[in-house]
Amino acid sequence: MRFAEWGELAFHRWLAARFGAGFSGAGFGDDAALLKSGNTRVAVTTDAVVEGVHFRRDWFSWAEIGRRAVYGCLSDLAAVCAQPLALLLSLGVPEDLSAAAVRAFTNAVAQTAAEYGARLAGGDTTQSKGFFADLVAVGETKQPWLRSGAQIGDALVVTGALGAPTAAIALLEKGQRPAARWRALRNRLAAPRPRIIEAQALACLPVHAALDISDGLLLDASRLAAASGLRAEIRADLIPLADGVAEAARALGRPELEFAAGGGEEYELLIALAAEQVPTARQKLAVLNCPLTVVGHVVEGSGAVLLDSRGVCIRLPTTGWEHYGGRPQAG
Amino acid sequence: MRFAEWGELAFHRWLAARFGAGFSGAGFGDDAALLKSGNTRVAVTTDAVVEGVHFRRDWFSWAEIGRRAVYGCLSDLAAVCAQPLALLLSLGVPEDLSAAAVRAFTNAVAQTAAEYGARLAGGDTTQSKGFFADLVAVGETKQPWLRSGAQIGDALVVTGALGAPTAAIALLEKGQRPAARWRALRNRLAAPRPRIIEAQALACLPVHAALDISDGLLLDASRLAAASGLRAEIRADLIPLADGVAEAARALGRPELEFAAGGGEEYELLIALAAEQVPTARQKLAVLNCPLTVVGHVVEGSGAVLLDSRGVCIRLPTTGWEHYGGRPQAG
Repeated sequence: MRFAEWGELAFHRWLAARFGAGFSGAGFGDDAALLKSGNTRVAVTTDAVVEGVHFRRDWFSWAEIGRRAVYGCLSDLAAVCAQPLALLLSLGVPEDLSAAAVRAFTNAVAQTAAEYGARLAGGDTTQSKGFFADLVAVGETKQPWLRSGAQIGDALVVTGALGAPTAAIALLEKGQRPAARWRALRNRLAAPRPRIIEAQALACLPVHAALDISDGLLLDASRLAAASGLRAEIRADLIPLADGVAEAARALGRPELEFAAGGGEEYELLIALAAEQVPTARQKLAVLNCPLTVVGHVVEGSGAVLLDSRGVCIRLPTTGWEHYGGRPQAG
Repeated sequence: MRFAEWGELAFHRWLAARFGAGFSGAGFGDDAALLKSGNTRVAVTTDAVVEGVHFRRDWFSWAEIGRRAVYGCLSDLAAVCAQPLALLLSLGVPEDLSAAAVRAFTNAVAQTAAEYGARLAGGDTTQSKGFFADLVAVGETKQPWLRSGAQIGDALVVTGALGAPTAAIALLEKGQRPAARWRALRNRLAAPRPRIIEAQALACLPVHAALDISDGLLLDASRLAAASGLRAEIRADLIPLADGVAEAARALGRPELEFAAGGGEEYELLIALAAEQVPTARQKLAVLNCPLTVVGHVVEGSGAVLLDSRGVCIRLPTTGWEHYGGRPQAG
């Protein structure tokens, strides 16, 4: 059977069965591998970026591609509440790529890492048919957040506002690039800010479970729920919409929920914590100009559901994202 | 300018100038990035393996490809005297690859990591035009070995015997696969054993500098020399030849030195230490069935030279290995 037929999801299931809960970062397990060394916990995560799969050259500059790659990788450290230490970069460079492109990419990686206190500490370079970059982020954490640990009655909160990255992709796919009115959406796609500082600000609170929204709120909520052995109920009307998403959804003739609940590459945090902790958490993030919104609750059961304000279940046409074929993964 | 024209070496020089001595694992810097966290030093290294560049499917099984990838990565931990903790695996899988191949590869990676005390702790999967795997090895070390630190008068010693991997490649390229007489050479290429345990056995000795021979003894000696601000003199007649290399060189009509001094993928250690420590070091490795041979000395000056028994300089046709074009890098 071809790998593409078997599917990435099946591969992840196989990995989970084969390597157990200790395996992280492939749609199950925690966002980063957590290793004990001496008196610290080291968090390590790896994130591959492939031309044609994760980016298109006509959409982004090489500096933007480099920055986005770092953001995606650091977001996994934010998800386990780790402070970045270092970044490593493995590059696969096709023969015809310009030296200037490689320098622009690498400079952007190093600069972005430095903004978050991490240094570019090493890597590898090789020839390759298509461009790829594999980024490794290493961080340290005293008290890592896991996906498991959510408790019945916990509030599910998200940082920031959702929907912009996939709305921007949908617009770009329709060739809507230059329009000034979509610029904010595009910028959100090009530069999702990993919530490193925000996670550190919440480190003193009793967070029960967390992850970053990389494949869509609903799919990632189902992962948190599965790891915790519970059910996530998301209220569609509570999901904070990023600026421009409603307008873009109208222009595209698609429901805004598709972007806000089903859209990936958000790199916002989804956190489960006791409802009475929400005001304190909100206060701590307000100083950092980061909104925190309750989008649902943890209840007994399994899976993740999207409910309207009357508690009726809403089904999205597709939820979440898979590299091979884009089949629905949860709902 | 195309990246291929600029060259990997030029890119490494640019990286060195841009990111300084702290950048590791791209032909300069140390073999692994060394990070301080709490009371431990964490060593992290990343190694990309690309189809058509690092392996050919008709030469190796997928299990062998997986094992080799791990060996190459763990060898970088051995080079800094680190004990493996965990491995992460980023996979780029082309659509037409079989699911069985991906499972065989991943199983081999996990099993090999386990043999060296490391667990497969995470990773990433993505679609890609050609197959690639980026392996991340994380280890811990109390007293890391660096490339810098060699002293005038130090003996340069190597573990094991050299020449087999590139002799095997030369034979494979001539289609000499099945011949039983070359089987030992091929096995040495398919399964280079990283010197993890050997490095740990030497951890109590005052090793001044070390690296693993991944791009050829002479080129890697020049890297150790450059990092230490000194000169490496290698005596060609002292280099320990792996079994079958002399015979293969004769059959191929090429000088055996080309394989033993210029051939990469050895994954043996090159170590600089005080000459009076050599007997103790040799004794410690003898228990592990690992020979240790003095191949030269560290002297004042710069670069690395290959000398015959009378002290006359020998030039190799090519020394060391670059992904783009294979130009000589040292001599």
